[in-house]
Amino acid sequence: MSQLTVVKVGGKVIDDEALLLNFLTQFAQLSGNKILVHGGGTKANQVLKQMGLKVTMLNGRRVTSKRDLEIVTAVYAGLINKSIIAKLQSINCNALGLCGADANSIVSTIRAKTPIDYGLVGDIATVNNPLITLLIANKIVPVFNAITHDKNGQLLNTNADSIASFIAGSLTTNFDIRLYYYFELAGVFHIDNNESKTFESLTASQYQKYKQSGDIKQGMVPKLDNAFLALKNGVKQVCIGNQLSDFKGTNILQ
Amino acid sequence: MSQLTVVKVGGKVIDDEALLLNFLTQFAQLSGNKILVHGGGTKANQVLKQMGLKVTMLNGRRVTSKRDLEIVTAVYAGLINKSIIAKLQSINCNALGLCGADANSIVSTIRAKTPIDYGLVGDIATVNNPLITLLIANKIVPVFNAITHDKNGQLLNTNADSIASFIAGSLTTNFDIRLYYYFELAGVFHIDNNESKTFESLTASQYQKYKQSGDIKQGMVPKLDNAFLALKNGVKQVCIGNQLSDFKGTNILQ
Repeated sequence: MSQLTVVKVGGKVIDDEALLLNFLTQFAQLSGNKILVHGGGTKANQVLKQMGLKVTMLNGRRVTSKRDLEIVTAVYAGLINKSIIAKLQSINCNALGLCGADANSIVSTIRAKTPIDYGLVGDIATVNNPLITLLIANKIVPVFNAITHDKNGQLLNTNADSIASFIAGSLTTNFDIRLYYYFELAGVFHIDNNESKTFESLTASQYQKYKQSGDIKQGMVPKLDNAFLALKNGVKQVCIGNQLSDFKGTNILQ
Repeated sequence: MSQLTVVKVGGKVIDDEALLLNFLTQFAQLSGNKILVHGGGTKANQVLKQMGLKVTMLNGRRVTSKRDLEIVTAVYAGLINKSIIAKLQSINCNALGLCGADANSIVSTIRAKTPIDYGLVGDIATVNNPLITLLIANKIVPVFNAITHDKNGQLLNTNADSIASFIAGSLTTNFDIRLYYYFELAGVFHIDNNESKTFESLTASQYQKYKQSGDIKQGMVPKLDNAFLALKNGVKQVCIGNQLSDFKGTNILQ
């Protein structure tokens, strides 16, 4: 099977023009088949605040009202996605932006209202492998944003780390997959003798230990859960960091 | 050659949920190859006003600042495009949303700053026929919004009537094309003995006459210019109205 690299970009990289350009240049230069998944982060919050709307977060996750969904759809699928596409096109990467509704690429189901009602938030049900392989076979680079749909007309806000993990896991039937979670830091950090250090690698059992001790913090937990899930689903290599060009950072190991 | 129907939807239809659903149902039921192009209209202006930004129009066309472009990209390529895609997917139409940057589908050049500086507005240069035919051959329905790019990283606000006309004209090398401009009215109106009447058809010479007499109004002029341009470029049939299912309205004739 041929190789495919799935890259998720998020965190401060999306909000900082220079960091984003640096990342997109690395991504465009990556050889072989590739897919990009991006988050939205603080930009949607800025717009919501500018429009006098309240940002509601619960356990680090956005509670998405009907109005919030309009804003995140506009910002993620419109402003951020199309700015990334235009930039990639200018540096010889034939990118095409997709939300989950586009060509029915990702179907999700609305999350159960109990114990916490997150509103219009989706959990991924299916990834359209034939569509993605068609695009890749035609030298098109799919660029996914964090909006999916339920196939009944409802768009749903979806975690971009999960989208990357599910796409990677789903496409293991078609490709040898490696997955890179790109953000502003060199990898997963922990504190060792009052000194902040990057893990070269992290196994599932180490992760459990550091999670229990509190050395691995809240924000990193869902990302690492998605990273380990991808390995479980047959992804060959998973890495977290900010050196995409040589695939360096914290290697996630089963 | 097989037939392809290009449909532009705009005007009040985009802003009115019931009118839009009625239109999308007609579009989904249209048999054969098809492409949709949509405008954005008043929604972007609402958002701009809500954010305390000024809407600047000159000769009925939006002057697009850097900030305005962000808003129209968010609203046209994000909010409106993805809402349309999700709705079409729910009624068995395998729609995929595109701005001109996506897979380099439409390249435009920024409009000259003289005599009027419209800002970040694009005039269409090329349409990517191979991409569009690839999508159509794979039973995917392209849905274009009014954002294009210059291939150098700059998104550009572009007239949706022009996009429909250029796509239709460009694809005459691959398909027998018919083009429908859908809006809230039954066709092109004129006043006859103080009575408002719909033209059954309109030739280029009649159009010139009614334009000079002022019977055909400002807003309709660019739409009709685009309709006649499509015919000139080899499109077989052009119609303007609100009865897509039986392709009725004002027939535009050379």
